[in-house]
Amino acid sequence: MTRSAFLRARRPEHKQQRREAILAAARELARTSGVRNVSLGAVAEAVGLAKSNIVRYFGTREEIYLELLADEWRQWAEAVAERLRTTSGTTNAVTALVETIVERPLFCDLLSHASTSLEHNVSVPAARAFKHAVHARIAEMGAAMAGATDLTEREGGELAAACSGLAGMLYPAANPPPALAQVYAEDPELAAACPVLLPTLVRALSALAAGLPTLREE
Amino acid sequence: MTRSAFLRARRPEHKQQRREAILAAARELARTSGVRNVSLGAVAEAVGLAKSNIVRYFGTREEIYLELLADEWRQWAEAVAERLRTTSGTTNAVTALVETIVERPLFCDLLSHASTSLEHNVSVPAARAFKHAVHARIAEMGAAMAGATDLTEREGGELAAACSGLAGMLYPAANPPPALAQVYAEDPELAAACPVLLPTLVRALSALAAGLPTLREE
Repeated sequence: MTRSAFLRARRPEHKQQRREAILAAARELARTSGVRNVSLGAVAEAVGLAKSNIVRYFGTREEIYLELLADEWRQWAEAVAERLRTTSGTTNAVTALVETIVERPLFCDLLSHASTSLEHNVSVPAARAFKHAVHARIAEMGAAMAGATDLTEREGGELAAACSGLAGMLYPAANPPPALAQVYAEDPELAAACPVLLPTLVRALSALAAGLPTLREE
Repeated sequence: MTRSAFLRARRPEHKQQRREAILAAARELARTSGVRNVSLGAVAEAVGLAKSNIVRYFGTREEIYLELLADEWRQWAEAVAERLRTTSGTTNAVTALVETIVERPLFCDLLSHASTSLEHNVSVPAARAFKHAVHARIAEMGAAMAGATDLTEREGGELAAACSGLAGMLYPAANPPPALAQVYAEDPELAAACPVLLPTLVRALSALAAGLPTLREE
């Protein structure tokens, strides 16, 4: 679509195309530069629209990224469900959770900014839609985990939620900014203490999966 | 000290006083407004110095908050060690970790911003000093946990690190911004899914403490 056609878009399917174009540009910029470094102005420039035009589709930069995060949650839940259809047992289920999240760096990056940044500066409807989406995904994943292991649905949902939370916490630590990368290069002891995403997640979730059933009430 | 005396401060003890005044102002602003809402300009205004004067003491806003975070880590480790001198057993040790962190909202707020924000935009020496401090605190706490429970020092340190990470993850979720607070007020099901800091930490750390020993190699 040429820029002039794009600017004239008025019909519903064209509006949907614009939304998709904005989301695609924001996704690509975040993949290249990291979520924290992308401004609304950069998204507008990448998609060839004025900022004042962007905000007709998404009220703020944070609303764009919250929608991308909900989409990543959906894709992750689908990938885990797919894996759990052909495997079972707690060890395999934990591996499925961890491997599918580690292969989604944009998801991890977005998770790391969700509660401290992306959930701020958004409208009430955007916040509600996001929370409903996450709530539904965790419930689905809890059921899928319960079907593949001896865990309850609640415990399975807790493992999925813990996996997302820990991935969001560990991803920025495992991908240090330049000053920290230099510290690690100069100090092997500190570098050894820097968590590696996949094995750290496997160990934490394996321990949680073993420990949660011991907390069941009689 | 009057403003003019403050501005003329040149001797080492006066420079130390200025550092302390800057840290105290940044701490107070963060307690009132939340870490994410405090700018370097606001700190400068609160302490009665020009921004150009502040940066002689701290290169960036993030260096101020990283130093406050290292200080909070020290205070938390001391509080946990104090508790573990008069109690023992895994349940009591987990309670000690959780209760002492929950009563430190500024620590939790700072933890929530550490790897996604505060560790960025700092000098290599500031990043190194911070990482060394955290590394030392986790080692101390691991030893204290091992002394009070059947856990190893490694497992004790992992529990302390997990407690800090989960507190940093859960604190902003448990203290939602206005739009989310409105969503929760209107939607009891979503509100019920919003984590409460203390019981969520107790459950996660109790499960980890029960599960980590099952992962020991023969």
